[in-house]
This record gives sequence, structure tokens and C-alpha cells, in this order.
Amino acid sequence: AAMLQSGGRYLVSTDTLIENHDFKTSWSTGFDIGFKSAASNLADIAAMGAIPSGMVVALVVPKTTEISWLEEFAKGLQSAIDSLAPEASVVGGDLAAGSEIVVSVTVFGELDGTEAVLRSGAKVGDVLAVSGSLGRAACGLALLQSGNSDFIRSYDDWVVSHLRPTPNLEAGVLAAKAGATAMLDVSDSLLLDSERIAKASSVAIDIHSLQLKGFEATLDLPAQALGVNPAIWVLEGGEDHALLATFPKGSKIPRSFKPIGEVVSGEGKLLLDGEPIQATGWDSIRGEIN
Amino acid sequence: AAMLQSGGRYLVSTDTLIENHDFKTSWSTGFDIGFKSAASNLADIAAMGAIPSGMVVALVVPKTTEISWLEEFAKGLQSAIDSLAPEASVVGGDLAAGSEIVVSVTVFGELDGTEAVLRSGAKVGDVLAVSGSLGRAACGLALLQSGNSDFIRSYDDWVVSHLRPTPNLEAGVLAAKAGATAMLDVSDSLLLDSERIAKASSVAIDIHSLQLKGFEATLDLPAQALGVNPAIWVLEGGEDHALLATFPKGSKIPRSFKPIGEVVSGEGKLLLDGEPIQATGWDSIRGEIN
Repeated sequence: AAMLQSGGRYLVSTDTLIENHDFKTSWSTGFDIGFKSAASNLADIAAMGAIPSGMVVALVVPKTTEISWLEEFAKGLQSAIDSLAPEASVVGGDLAAGSEIVVSVTVFGELDGTEAVLRSGAKVGDVLAVSGSLGRAACGLALLQSGNSDFIRSYDDWVVSHLRPTPNLEAGVLAAKAGATAMLDVSDSLLLDSERIAKASSVAIDIHSLQLKGFEATLDLPAQALGVNPAIWVLEGGEDHALLATFPKGSKIPRSFKPIGEVVSGEGKLLLDGEPIQATGWDSIRGEIN
Repeated sequence: AAMLQSGGRYLVSTDTLIENHDFKTSWSTGFDIGFKSAASNLADIAAMGAIPSGMVVALVVPKTTEISWLEEFAKGLQSAIDSLAPEASVVGGDLAAGSEIVVSVTVFGELDGTEAVLRSGAKVGDVLAVSGSLGRAACGLALLQSGNSDFIRSYDDWVVSHLRPTPNLEAGVLAAKAGATAMLDVSDSLLLDSERIAKASSVAIDIHSLQLKGFEATLDLPAQALGVNPAIWVLEGGEDHALLATFPKGSKIPRSFKPIGEVVSGEGKLLLDGEPIQATGWDSIRGEIN
């Protein structure tokens, strides 16, 4: 057990990564898995407009796991904290034996003079905007799945985006201070996570495909190599943990956020260029794209 | 994510239960597993002298798990909170698919005007005392392991102690207020957990076997049925989550705590009636008694 300081209230979020569902040890080192566990959970707190302050980690590993793997895992966890949320620290943990690796992280956070930003506050007329990358982690996953070692080596940057995502977490507090009405991190897909805001806020979200072209352009080279339309990765890929937020129309949106759509009337509907679209993306229960 | 109130600082503890290591679905219902997950984690916070305020639960289950099992699990979790720590509530959770059931619980707690009681504060001369039962959960496990359905039915109370432990968590705050110098909950065994206090406090702990006779007496009937010496369950059994604490000599020990030994000089040593004894009990990494 550990003790944390708090300004009177604190935020808590928990999430779990599971071997062969969220990562494969053939692709991810212990360092990668530690890094990704921390990054994805820190993003949940940042997406509420809070500053991560601490984390506890429950780790389940097979009995055959080498001590060196555990050391690498701990280093990766710490590296993510150092680079993404230096005010946070690991305050507790638990290690147990099981048949597969399970990493369950609970992160705590403090608000910086704002209210917590929920996913339920989006209003008709708001601007939808994103801070961070879209589609890069999905592109990296596709490269790994291709099994083509030339591609994997050539497009190493994209592979690393999948293995060790580096979301811009400071943007969360900036968004809260700028008056963001709703926010979350894109963990499953732009479509699915936009729909979550739409449903929680009882509005419709219209994504403008033209405003996604910049994200697609960053995926051009590996997309051509694999013969894939990069728009699919941008719309249906998750795990970049970019921050997706809505801001009141006409408000000063923080520079790191790029507008990609708008909030319109409609009960939980998702639109692409004004046309209804089926929300697809990563299904963390079924462990597949749906 | 969720928001919790805090008096300026808060305690955090995390622990994990794993199928076939910490429970078997052939013995434990979803209700039992939910109950035990909450009880064992609430005990960690109570053992610091704090009042549990909230909990997040990360649950991993196979894809084939029935919804009814999940409902029973949630009911068991809530039942433990209602009966053991009514001021707490489940504030968040995460559900994911894996090959075996993994329950990872993180509990938060608030101090009630005292400092947190650690395991490192025991002083030579202190009285070692325990609040709650010892050996009952181990006895229940032995009954289940016997596979003898007559015994299991006849000694149902002891079996229930294993499946749904009900530690006296209010004793934790009382101990802190009475000046307890060290405390933990007996999760692995009286011997192992006493040794943990001894090591953390750089003292020796001498357990007085005569003072354990009362605990042994409560196990007499099933012990005779199974042909087992009940002292083994009392010394080497865990999972009752009794609170084990040290109090300054001559201090007023809360009524629910029964003295069972004393703190003497010696670097992390464990003694039984003045003689060195090997600390044995449940090894949560190896998943067996060591």
C-alpha cells in the first residue's frame, strides 16, 4: 500500500493489457509492454484534463518468466512515465503467477484548477479536434502482421508507434483550460471513440474526411508498401491514444489540436462528411476488429 | 475514470486473484470470487488503519463466460463491501477477455486522524496481537481438497470461511487509534506475515503457542474428521485476512485483538516459544505452500 497527496479530490482510471489480445511477446519486448501499459493508462487520466500523479501496477506473468523480462518491463514503465508524465510515479504493485501475461494498471490524477472533462459534455456546434497521431499504431500493427521483415525494418518508426505509443498528454490540461466540453483518448478507433462522445453527449458527430488527409499523408510510404488505403488506419485504427476533444465554436483551441469535424444534432449518431457511417474499430472484449 | 474526494491524502493498495492459483471455479461461484476479491483487498487498507473509501476492479474472463456469472461476481463484490466496509463503493472497472479469470482490485482509503500504520514500526517489547480468525480459511480449503462431500457439507461454516472470508475491518482503525506500531492482514500465513513485520521492523517476533490454543479449538471438529493437527492451519494457513498488529507494552489493546506473542530483539527473526522456526505459508508466486 502507498500514500498519495491530493488537493482534496482525485481521479482514478484502470485498464488492462492481456497477452495475445493487446500484445504479443514475439513482437513486444518486456520494455515495450511496460511502456505501452503506462502510456495507455496515463492517457486515460490526461483525457479528463488531469495531471497523472501516481500509478499502481498489478502484473501477472507465467512462472517461467525470466527476471530480466521483469526488469525490462519495469524500465519500460518508468521510461513512459519519465517521457510522458514526469510528475507521476509508480506507488505500488503486485506480482502474481498465471498462464499468460496480464498487466492491470490503475492511474491517479489531479485536476489543475478545472473541472474534470467527461465524454458527455459535447454540444451542438462544437468543433471536434484531435491532438496527436491517428493511424500510426494501426499502421505499425499491420506491418508486424505482414511478417515482411524488410517492411518492418524500413518502416521502423511506424512499428515503434504501435509498440511504444507516445501520446501528447500535456495537451489534456491545455484542452481543459481552453474549455473543452468533452474529451477521451482514441484507444479503439477514431470512429468508435467519436461515437462514444456522441452517445454520451446525446449529439451526433460529423467527421470531415478532408481534414484527415494530413494524418493519411504521414502513412503514405508504408501504406503503399502494403497496398492499403491509409484512410482505413486513420478511421478504424486505435492505440495511438491521441486526445479527441470538443471545443465550443469560436473558442481558442490549443495549437496542438487539429479540427477534424463538428458536433451536430442527432442522438448518438456518427457521420462522415454528413453521411451515417458504421463505427468500427478494436473490440477489446472480442479481441478483434469489428 | 472516476473522481473521489479526499481529506488531502489517500492510501492505495492493489492485489490480484487468479483462477486455479487463488480460487477454482469448481469450488467458488462468481459470487464467492467477487466477495473474496473485495474482502482481501479491503483488508489491505484496513490493515493500515484506514477506512476504505473506493475501489476499482479490473476483471479478465474467458470469452465463454456467461453474463450471469458476471452478475453474480458483481453481487458478491457489492455484498462484501456492504458487510465489511459500507463506506466504500466501486468507482470504476475494466472488463477484458483472456484465457483465465484474473481479478485485479485497487482499493483507496482515508485515514481517520491517525498516521498510516506500516509493517515497519514494531519495537522490542511490543505485544503481538490478532483480530479475527486464524486457520479457518485453511481448514475450509483442506475440506474442499479432501473431496469428501460429507465433510464439506458437515463443516460448511469452515468451507464458507475459505470461500467468503469476513475479516473484522473496523478493528484496523481501532488499532491505529490505540497506537498500533505495525500492522498487516494475514493473507499468506501467521508465520510468513509475522516474519514480514519482523523483517520490515528489524526485530524478532516470538509467537506463543499457548495463546493460539483458542484458535485451534475452533477447528477441532473438522481437524479430527480430516486427521490433521489444527495448529498447522493456524500457523501456516492464510486468507482469513485477520489483522495482525503490534502494540506498545502496557498500552490499552482494543478488545477485538487477542495477544499471541511479543516483539523481541533480533534482525528479522521468527520464533515460536523462543525457538527459531521456518516461516512457511502460501507462496503467491509459486502458487503453493512453501
